[in-house]
Amino acid sequence: MDKNSATKTQASSVAITDYFKQQSARVEQWLERLLPASNKAPVTIHEAMRYSIFAGGKRLRPALVIATGEVFDADEQALLPTACALEMIHTYSLIHDDLPAMDNDDLRRGRPTNHKVYGEAMAILAGDALLTQAFITLANLEGVSAETKVRVSAEVAQAAGTVNALIGGQVLDIQNEGRPVTAEELDAIHRAKTGALIRCCVRVGAMIGGASESELQLLTEYAEKSGLAFQIADDVLDATATSEELGKTAGKDEASQKATYVALYGIESARQRAEQLCQEAIEAVQKIGRETAQLEAIARFIVERKH
Amino acid sequence: MDKNSATKTQASSVAITDYFKQQSARVEQWLERLLPASNKAPVTIHEAMRYSIFAGGKRLRPALVIATGEVFDADEQALLPTACALEMIHTYSLIHDDLPAMDNDDLRRGRPTNHKVYGEAMAILAGDALLTQAFITLANLEGVSAETKVRVSAEVAQAAGTVNALIGGQVLDIQNEGRPVTAEELDAIHRAKTGALIRCCVRVGAMIGGASESELQLLTEYAEKSGLAFQIADDVLDATATSEELGKTAGKDEASQKATYVALYGIESARQRAEQLCQEAIEAVQKIGRETAQLEAIARFIVERKH
Repeated sequence: MDKNSATKTQASSVAITDYFKQQSARVEQWLERLLPASNKAPVTIHEAMRYSIFAGGKRLRPALVIATGEVFDADEQALLPTACALEMIHTYSLIHDDLPAMDNDDLRRGRPTNHKVYGEAMAILAGDALLTQAFITLANLEGVSAETKVRVSAEVAQAAGTVNALIGGQVLDIQNEGRPVTAEELDAIHRAKTGALIRCCVRVGAMIGGASESELQLLTEYAEKSGLAFQIADDVLDATATSEELGKTAGKDEASQKATYVALYGIESARQRAEQLCQEAIEAVQKIGRETAQLEAIARFIVERKH
Repeated sequence: MDKNSATKTQASSVAITDYFKQQSARVEQWLERLLPASNKAPVTIHEAMRYSIFAGGKRLRPALVIATGEVFDADEQALLPTACALEMIHTYSLIHDDLPAMDNDDLRRGRPTNHKVYGEAMAILAGDALLTQAFITLANLEGVSAETKVRVSAEVAQAAGTVNALIGGQVLDIQNEGRPVTAEELDAIHRAKTGALIRCCVRVGAMIGGASESELQLLTEYAEKSGLAFQIADDVLDATATSEELGKTAGKDEASQKATYVALYGIESARQRAEQLCQEAIEAVQKIGRETAQLEAIARFIVERKH
């Protein structure tokens, strides 16, 4: 890497950090309005929902919805609630994944997990409630046609489901723990567990923006490649970063003999694979011929991030 | 009760039992198509979903959707999947309520509960998946406008949520266990826990059928009164029937000092209250001036049933 490209990487990385901060602030303002107030009865469930959704985090999924929608000048009234709905679904999946019966995690984003604070029963219900709230939110979108609302809702529900989708991925993840998996199996797990929702974020952003069918195809390619790169980078981080940097228990994958890209390819090859996918994602999105700098920067961020 | 009315009650009870059987058969045919096949990967989650949804049961909620829709000659292509979506949500809530962290029930409809068969992790995910599948189903309805799909989806999501709705009711139920509650508190718990979904069944049936605003109001009144009567009858059954009759552990409410109408009013007063609500529900629905015999019979069944 010559001096110029190093400077460029650093500059784009600063810019994307600012972009995430700006979009997080917008998303949190909307989440504040979209979730039942914490003084609304029953108070505890609303507190539990808010505890996890306002726990920080990168807000990568909402940023993808927004960055994609803004390529097509999408209406904020529809785009931001959709971004929030995806964050609700992501957060519900984290709450349930952390439960004692699942990954049994005590720490998430540097804080005690939902069930450590509110107990298991309330954590299960808070997850259920965030999933449900996502569909309340999508049914009440403004600024788009009923046809678009239905299309977005179908896309989100499908991505959150069992077939090549979020819940299915979690099932595979649980079932494969401690046993060797092939490269194809690992790709299938991650296409489902993290890929489906990331793909969905980009696609619903495009739908709300009114993208053409060919644009939607290119964006889908961008999203699928970025999603896989994201998971590989995640595996690399788990193997190389400290718990403090991650805000969650590091080295857990190896300890639990979880199937990861690092276990399969080693750290260096995994890194290279993530970088190649990132490059291909950027090339796909550039073919659209619109202003896609933020989407490109997000793809780069995905493989360069330190947490 | 004179001989005539006794005969009439018996006759209508036989008729409604047949009606439930007929509608159950239709609902199960549609559920078969609407749920991912059990040989579709990941197999286990689809088996777990099907284990609970095909566990029998009265199919009261789908029957309410269908009976209401058929008052307005609703299109089967939209009505039956909607009925199935409500049954998916009801089943998800039972799976999660039965979990060790919640009511810790081993028996449901005479069979081991989902987590006893598939383990806690899979039971949590099967519940999540049925909730999600309900919204996949609603987004893919045929035979109704996109506007109606959005309206139905909003109504269902709201009823499944936390504010005077399904999840909120479960929260109150957990929080109030073992402490005395007032009559008003008990009504609020049940309006949320069982009432919201029953109300929703009737309302979405009416929406798909294209009911007028005033018809929707009368049907809502019918549903709210029937829903409360249903819960009171449930409490009476828990106190008076055997586990064998119920297909679940009987007498559990008293053992766990759960707030019930029986604990509050005694068995006889609770029975009378249920009968009065049933009568008022029937009067409301008769004001519509259409053929509502099935809805009336369902209201009577709700208070007269033996399990």
